Parts: sequence; structure tokens; C-alpha cells
Amino acid sequence: MEIRIKTDKPYTVYIENGILEKTGEIIAQFRAKGTKVMIMSETNVFRYYGTRLSESLKKAGFNVSSYVFIAGEESKNMKTVMEMYEALTENGFTRSDIIVNLGGGVTGDMGGFVAATYLRGIDFVQVPTSLLSQVDASVGGKTGIDLPSGKNLVGAFHQPLCVICDPETLKTLPKEYFIDGLGEVVKYGCIYDKELFFDLETGKAFKNMAETIYRCVDAKRVYVEDDTKDTGRRMILNFGHTFGHALEKLHDFKELSHGRAVAIGMLIASEIGESMNITKKGTSERIRALLIDLGLPTQDKFTLDDILDATALDKKTFGRNINLIFLNEIGSSLIHKIERNYLILRCKIMQQQKIRNNIEKN
Amino acid sequence: MEIRIKTDKPYTVYIENGILEKTGEIIAQFRAKGTKVMIMSETNVFRYYGTRLSESLKKAGFNVSSYVFIAGEESKNMKTVMEMYEALTENGFTRSDIIVNLGGGVTGDMGGFVAATYLRGIDFVQVPTSLLSQVDASVGGKTGIDLPSGKNLVGAFHQPLCVICDPETLKTLPKEYFIDGLGEVVKYGCIYDKELFFDLETGKAFKNMAETIYRCVDAKRVYVEDDTKDTGRRMILNFGHTFGHALEKLHDFKELSHGRAVAIGMLIASEIGESMNITKKGTSERIRALLIDLGLPTQDKFTLDDILDATALDKKTFGRNINLIFLNEIGSSLIHKIERNYLILRCKIMQQQKIRNNIEKN
Repeated sequence: MEIRIKTDKPYTVYIENGILEKTGEIIAQFRAKGTKVMIMSETNVFRYYGTRLSESLKKAGFNVSSYVFIAGEESKNMKTVMEMYEALTENGFTRSDIIVNLGGGVTGDMGGFVAATYLRGIDFVQVPTSLLSQVDASVGGKTGIDLPSGKNLVGAFHQPLCVICDPETLKTLPKEYFIDGLGEVVKYGCIYDKELFFDLETGKAFKNMAETIYRCVDAKRVYVEDDTKDTGRRMILNFGHTFGHALEKLHDFKELSHGRAVAIGMLIASEIGESMNITKKGTSERIRALLIDLGLPTQDKFTLDDILDATALDKKTFGRNINLIFLNEIGSSLIHKIERNYLILRCKIMQQQKIRNNIEKN
Repeated sequence: MEIRIKTDKPYTVYIENGILEKTGEIIAQFRAKGTKVMIMSETNVFRYYGTRLSESLKKAGFNVSSYVFIAGEESKNMKTVMEMYEALTENGFTRSDIIVNLGGGVTGDMGGFVAATYLRGIDFVQVPTSLLSQVDASVGGKTGIDLPSGKNLVGAFHQPLCVICDPETLKTLPKEYFIDGLGEVVKYGCIYDKELFFDLETGKAFKNMAETIYRCVDAKRVYVEDDTKDTGRRMILNFGHTFGHALEKLHDFKELSHGRAVAIGMLIASEIGESMNITKKGTSERIRALLIDLGLPTQDKFTLDDILDATALDKKTFGRNINLIFLNEIGSSLIHKIERNYLILRCKIMQQQKIRNNIEKN
């Protein structure tokens, strides 16, 4: 399957079981034999797929080298980036050579940033191997690294030459990471694709992961094409992320993973939406049931008050007003600008209502 | 005087004596009171103009802070960039806050790179204080830093919010830097503006530096607007730079300054152009006389053969063919693709011709 992403620089996302071994063939459409290709990857993923990718590239006539860093978010810093630059200069990479990022979000974000800035920008290919990066991080052109003071504080917008997505790589992905990726899959069901949501409920979505990934990427495409610079409608993609990001921050970006934080965030947003009569009644209960079914969390040790406080410090949600994403119902979403004080009031009312409902029930 | 640069994100270059003190007023067109502004500058320049700039910004209601690094190309590295990022996060800079770069090319390149990558891009204002940065480096959207292995190997394209150019700051610029900047001024005369070249010959150009800077910026505008990503016609701006850059490299980017290297490079390109009957006879003699008059060099300890060898290693001039910029005559230029081997042959012929001419003269 193929999806064409029509941003300022259009590119194609290829999704197919076993396509990893066709990477060389695909890139040969864009570059002549002899072009230098640097595989950027991390220890865990490179161990499984490094050789197969490298062989595929060599077979297509490319001059292949690789840089492999120690797996984990701790590596997503300027030190690793500097080592990547060095690997490129040592191998004499010029503007017409390319980078291939093999791995999850950390690899794609960091390799993408290096591609965006080496010689003021060279081309790169994403080969995402985690569910999260396949459905989300490898499309949209966002690249970034962490600073000592925070996550993704440095970055650039840079579109890939193409994205090569092999669902078979998910077989070696640890289960906790797979579940984490499902958080974003549920999001695409919520904001855009009610059939995807239904297929997640029935389990049909897991029988054909290529199709499921395709539907997520296609949903993301709609919003990214609309708004490549992340200022307007693309905000819809932040459904669950305002509260989710606040939760991640409260957990110091450690104990709670991104997809899990988004899961809780989506539930909070749906509950607030229902209490404000924006979201159809019963929606949050349906989301809650699905999250539980998929092994995703629905609550956290931090309270809604803690979460609201934390949003005040977020770069995307600072200031008096806050843009929240709500659902009309499953598969349909909207941006709603709300005053922070009013949001806090609504949350109080909602919590009192919950307490009252619980009393009535018992 | 004002020039509107119509790139993908249009902006204005303001050129006026004493305009430094109106910086706050000008930026107030773009940003509300209370917006955070970080002045990025270096020790030498900040000492002269830091307070005046800061006062102007405060008077306009901005929340001003500053980061000052040790003057010199040695500071143009990732360490300084990381400190700039830190200064921004410590002061809680968000996407709507801005950076003001006060200084020469190093400051503008590095502060511009930080603006291009902090939070995936925030707005910035250039306040160039050296002749080189006023006529050249602050227009065009190129930003960059050095790696241990070479100059400007990392960077991004990022257009400023506006450029504020105060020719009075040239009064405190050491003479050697002023002369260095003249190298680029001569270039604009050569490639585009024959009257500017004439005014440099007669000395009139120095009586009104604001006007001279305006004419250079206007010449650069023509090529930048045409081609914001530096792939086609913008190459014209590289007149003298292919050989100049090779010379800088031979000098390990130390003894020979950029403008001086470009001066010699322009002379070489004109001589080759004449010998190939592309450039009008007598052009190189006119350029030579002007360079001498301005205190710029016309030759170097490295030979033409050394220079040709060095171009083979340059990122812009690698490969079998080389794009050279030639003059038709003063004020008119063209791009000429030439095989490296043929270029070497032409240079040999030219050098033999020179020797013969010298013998005939004596």
C-alpha cells in the first residue's frame, strides 16, 4: 500500500509486510548508484534489522555506512547529534547523499534533525520500526532533540524523501511498546476514523496491521497536508495530548510512556467534552472500555487538578486561553478555544457531578 | 531607506544612520508589549551597542534579556549554541518570543541557527554591525555553525522578521574588517551594479555608506528572491567564492579573511573569463586596480594550481563538472558549467600566455 503525502515537498509512505528488504530498490528511484547512504540506528533495532537493510541498499548499488547509538531516550541529545555529524563528515557526505533512519521515534527525530541541518539540509528516508513511529512520528516532518531542560526543545521541520514502513518489524517490538503505540492508533479512530475505532473494539484491526497503519497514516495525512507548519488544523492531532503531555511532565517523562499518557488525556478530554455538551453522551465510556481492553491505562496517581496546573507551564498551552481538541462523537473532532479559568471551573463542576453520580449509584 | 525582500516569508531591510535606537519601535510593529526579546551578541559589539539596543527595546515595552559570547569565529560552535538554547529555556522563551542578533556574521549565523531550531523555529531580527554582514550575511536566510571538521557544516534556512542596519556602527569597526567587507561590496558592483563599481573607483561610494549598503542589499535581493533555496540563479552570488573559498581552506580559515579571499577569487575568475573570451577584455585589469586602491589583495602565496586542487574537495565544487560564475563585463554576470579537466587546461594556457606577455614586455 502507498500513501502520497502532499506537503510543500510531497513524498510517499510505503506500507507492506517485508518491504524492509526492498528499501534499496525504492531509494534507487531517487538516487543514482554510488550515492552514499548512512544508516542511523540504535543498538536494539540495528541488531535485528541492520544487516537486512544494509544488504538491500548495497544490492541496489549504494555506498553504505552506518552510525549506531545506544538505544533509549537518554541518547536523544546534542552529543549523539554531534557524533552523527562527525560520521557524515568523516565519510565525506555531500548535499546529494542521504540518511536512512532505522528505528523508532528517537532515531527518526534525531536522524531527521541531523538531515535537516547537515549542510543546511540533506535528504533522508524514514524506516520506522515501532508502532508509534509507524502510525505517527514518521509522518509530518517534525524532527527534534532534547535539551537538559526539556524534551524536543530543539528541532526543525524537514520532510523525508519517503517513508518505508514494514509491519513485520513489530514482531520484535516488546509488548509494552506495542501497547504504547496503540494509544495513538485509538486517537486516529477517535478524531477521524470511526470504523478504525470499531475494528479496534472487535479486534479486527490486529488481523491486518498493514491496513491499520495505513488508516492511521491516512488520517494524519489529512491534517498534515492541511497545515504543514503546525499552527492551525493540525492541532486536531493533539487530541488527548494537552493533558497527556502535562501528565508526562508530572512524571518527569519517565514512568509514564507517551501513548499511555495520551490514552488518559483522551479520556479526560472526552469527559470534559461531555460535561460541556460538546461531545455525545456515552463517548467517554466507550473510549474507557476500549483502553482497558487494549491494556492502556484510564487513570493516574496525579489528579485532574495537578494536570490542569501542569498545562499552564506547557509551551503549547501557556497563556490565558487554551486550545483544546474535543470530539463531537467517535470519528469526528473540533478545536475549541477556552479560557483557562473557565476550563478549571468546568472541571470542578464535572468532578462534583461524578461524586454525585457515584453517591446515587451506591 | 527600506528594501522589501520577497522570499517565501517576506521581510524588510531597514537601512538608516542611527536606526539602532529605533529597533524597539520597529519590532513593536510585529510584537505586543511584554514579548520576551533575547539579544544575542558578542563581547566586542555588545560593549559598544548593547545598552543602546537594550534601552530601545525596553522603551518599546519588551521584556529584554541578553546572552553575550566571546567574540570570534572560535565561538561559532555547538557549545555556544547550547548555551544560547539554555539562556532561552531559563528565561522561559516560547514560540511567540524573539531573538535579536546584534553583531557581525558569526553572531547572525549562530543566533539565526538557534532561532531556526529552538522549539522548531522562532522569529528573529538581524541587527548587523559589520560591513560584511550588512551587505551580505544578514540577507538571504542562511544560518550556520562550524563543526570541528569544517566551517558552516551545520545550518538551516530561516528568514528573519526584519533586518535593521545602522551604518553608523561601522565607525567602531576595526579598519581591517571594514576592508574585508569591501570585498563583497566590489562583488555586487561586478555582478550586478556597474554604477556601484564606478562609485567605488571614484570614492563616491564612501560618502554615503547607507546608499552603498542599500545597493548591495538590493543586488542580493534580486538573486535571493529568485531562488531562496540556493540551487539555481543564486549561484551568481558565488562570484569569486569558488576560488576564494578554496583559498580560505588552504589557509585553514585563519590568516586570510573571507572578503580578501573573495577579492583574489574574483580576479582569478575574471582572468579565466577573459582568456576564454567570455569576459570583456580589460575587465580584470579594472578589478585589479580597484582592489589595490581599496587595500584588498590581488594575489596570494598559494598558486593557481594549489587553488584548483583545493576546489576538488569543496562541497559546492566536488565532482567532474564545476559551476563557475563569470562576468560578461562589469555589472553583468552568468553561470557557466565547465568540466574540471577543461578548466585546468584553460588555466595552463592562461598562465603560459601571461608568461609570454611578460617576456614580450621586457
